[in-house]
Amino acid sequence: MGTSIAVDGSDDTGAKKPVVCFLGPMSSYTHQAALQSFSKDDVELMPVSTIKDVFETTQAGAADYGVVPIENSTHGSVVFTLDLFAECEKLYPDLSVCAEVYLKVHHCLLGYLPPPAAASLPTTTTPTASSLLVSGQCTPTPSHPQPIHPRAQPLVSLAHIKRIYSHPQAFGQCRKFFETYLRGADTVDVSSTSRAAELAASDPSGESAAVSSALAATETGLEFLGRNIEDRDDNETRFFVLWRDEGALVKGRGQQQSIKSSSGAKSQDNHASGATKSLVSFTVPHRAPGALADVLECFRKGGLDLTSINSRPSLIAPFQYIFFVEFEGHKLEDPQGRVKDVLENVGNVAESWRWLGSWENMRR
Amino acid sequence: MGTSIAVDGSDDTGAKKPVVCFLGPMSSYTHQAALQSFSKDDVELMPVSTIKDVFETTQAGAADYGVVPIENSTHGSVVFTLDLFAECEKLYPDLSVCAEVYLKVHHCLLGYLPPPAAASLPTTTTPTASSLLVSGQCTPTPSHPQPIHPRAQPLVSLAHIKRIYSHPQAFGQCRKFFETYLRGADTVDVSSTSRAAELAASDPSGESAAVSSALAATETGLEFLGRNIEDRDDNETRFFVLWRDEGALVKGRGQQQSIKSSSGAKSQDNHASGATKSLVSFTVPHRAPGALADVLECFRKGGLDLTSINSRPSLIAPFQYIFFVEFEGHKLEDPQGRVKDVLENVGNVAESWRWLGSWENMRR
Repeated sequence: MGTSIAVDGSDDTGAKKPVVCFLGPMSSYTHQAALQSFSKDDVELMPVSTIKDVFETTQAGAADYGVVPIENSTHGSVVFTLDLFAECEKLYPDLSVCAEVYLKVHHCLLGYLPPPAAASLPTTTTPTASSLLVSGQCTPTPSHPQPIHPRAQPLVSLAHIKRIYSHPQAFGQCRKFFETYLRGADTVDVSSTSRAAELAASDPSGESAAVSSALAATETGLEFLGRNIEDRDDNETRFFVLWRDEGALVKGRGQQQSIKSSSGAKSQDNHASGATKSLVSFTVPHRAPGALADVLECFRKGGLDLTSINSRPSLIAPFQYIFFVEFEGHKLEDPQGRVKDVLENVGNVAESWRWLGSWENMRR
Repeated sequence: MGTSIAVDGSDDTGAKKPVVCFLGPMSSYTHQAALQSFSKDDVELMPVSTIKDVFETTQAGAADYGVVPIENSTHGSVVFTLDLFAECEKLYPDLSVCAEVYLKVHHCLLGYLPPPAAASLPTTTTPTASSLLVSGQCTPTPSHPQPIHPRAQPLVSLAHIKRIYSHPQAFGQCRKFFETYLRGADTVDVSSTSRAAELAASDPSGESAAVSSALAATETGLEFLGRNIEDRDDNETRFFVLWRDEGALVKGRGQQQSIKSSSGAKSQDNHASGATKSLVSFTVPHRAPGALADVLECFRKGGLDLTSINSRPSLIAPFQYIFFVEFEGHKLEDPQGRVKDVLENVGNVAESWRWLGSWENMRR
């Protein structure tokens, strides 16, 4: 099980700071989410390379908390994270979600400026869409009656860009900009947007760019080729904070004292409706598809509103699923036993199920 | 609305063949799915570049049918396709699903052979995993107690491969092979696996490879660097056949006479339980998350089993969703009115909803 670092409330003098690992490298959006959830001075931050590394590091006890992206408001669920939750029973038995973080996400296109001959557009004037358009589609035509309207225009000519690095989620949030201004360029998936900026910066040809945060421009010295290139201005990503919950049942939220709550203060109990959320996964018996509705009916009967539902391949047999349901309520702060009763009923109709965490609702 | 080609059953003498468009180019998996669903001699096949092009071409009437991937048994839903269904109300008002196709999918790694100096492994002997491993992980270590076990090994050394082209779905189905044998290489997303093979073939450096079908090797002349590299041997993709349903209510299944049924014969009516499936999308009122369970309860009450459920961002406001539900039953072959009653009830509790098609269940 690895070495666990004691960080509960009683251990506040000279104790080692809690370690928070996150999907790095530094300046990634997950790094920013970690800074939003923890006070910088209270914790030690540890970047790791992949979402899977966050699960493994936290499970092994090398970190007390792990921060991972779970869904984006434009592009939807992060399936890599869901697939790791599906493996919790087998590989990450001690992990659960203890907090969520919402982060506004504005993407930039970072790279080197075009060579002087190609840079016919002075950066002091605003280029028009048509002057930059290579293969875009802004005017309705018979074959494209509904042309795309990206929110942002490039700041310089992008004719020199042959290759763009980013995380698949970031590409999914900037489809309109890409379909309009970068149709001929290769998009290369890498593990994070900050890693993408590093790769673009290290290409001496100047033909590479990255979809990344503004912070990554400072870190790498790359120029801004576009700003706010996301499809929607209300683009936000939600993150989960994981921890090893072995002590949770005994200590309540003692271990969570490092985490900020929505009011900016330390976490506090709150039994009001919608104040907390929980996550469970479940499978239903093969050849009994009706059981899916039976499981969901448990939540309705118990008066616990569902706030999201996702399905992923169960990997037991083709086209069987593992379902992920988020609902209002907290398993560990449940004075009337409503969550307890509902989960008991779920256990009676699901083939298998697992509680994956309860936390304070940060979006009320 | 474009020109619609008459292809209903009555028009069988000298009429123009129905046109079937699909996510191309030729030799793509979607091409193979189209061939599985239609007799080659009965239709004219038309490859297009993107899934969106399939929707647009079919809506515009330039094709009578469109074939698109909807989900894979290993990697899950094809979110690009779901997002296009979410836009049906606005952009593709006449489209609905009229058939499904299941296709076994075996991926190959295609490319040029390593240069003679590097090709130290004779291809006549079976290489061991360790002899090919660059940065893989097959032996348990403290930091990786659960090493990955890919099903297939490379057929030759992959040290010369710097870049692999494929569709994001295909990468998602071959994660273990990539994490074990190709950790240092760039993965480049392109619109289809057959386009990936074309790009790898056109790279004179020989450093590019593609995850593609065996058929694409024949088309491009590339060599097999690996066979059956998918994570699971039961890897399958399900496809939807779209059509313009304007005449469906009047003509029943007349227009579908080109489509093969599960028995290999032409489509036939079948009212047995589980013989047909339907797809609907719906949204629930903002600030009334309980409505999700209320909508699902309509199906349970009506005795129509849910076979899958998916959610995607509604793009109305952050973290509101559009839900996609598949259930057993057929809207147009519904002698007892069960589907009709359930959909009426759905209309009473959902904020908005849309029927997206009914078809014969090909996996009973």
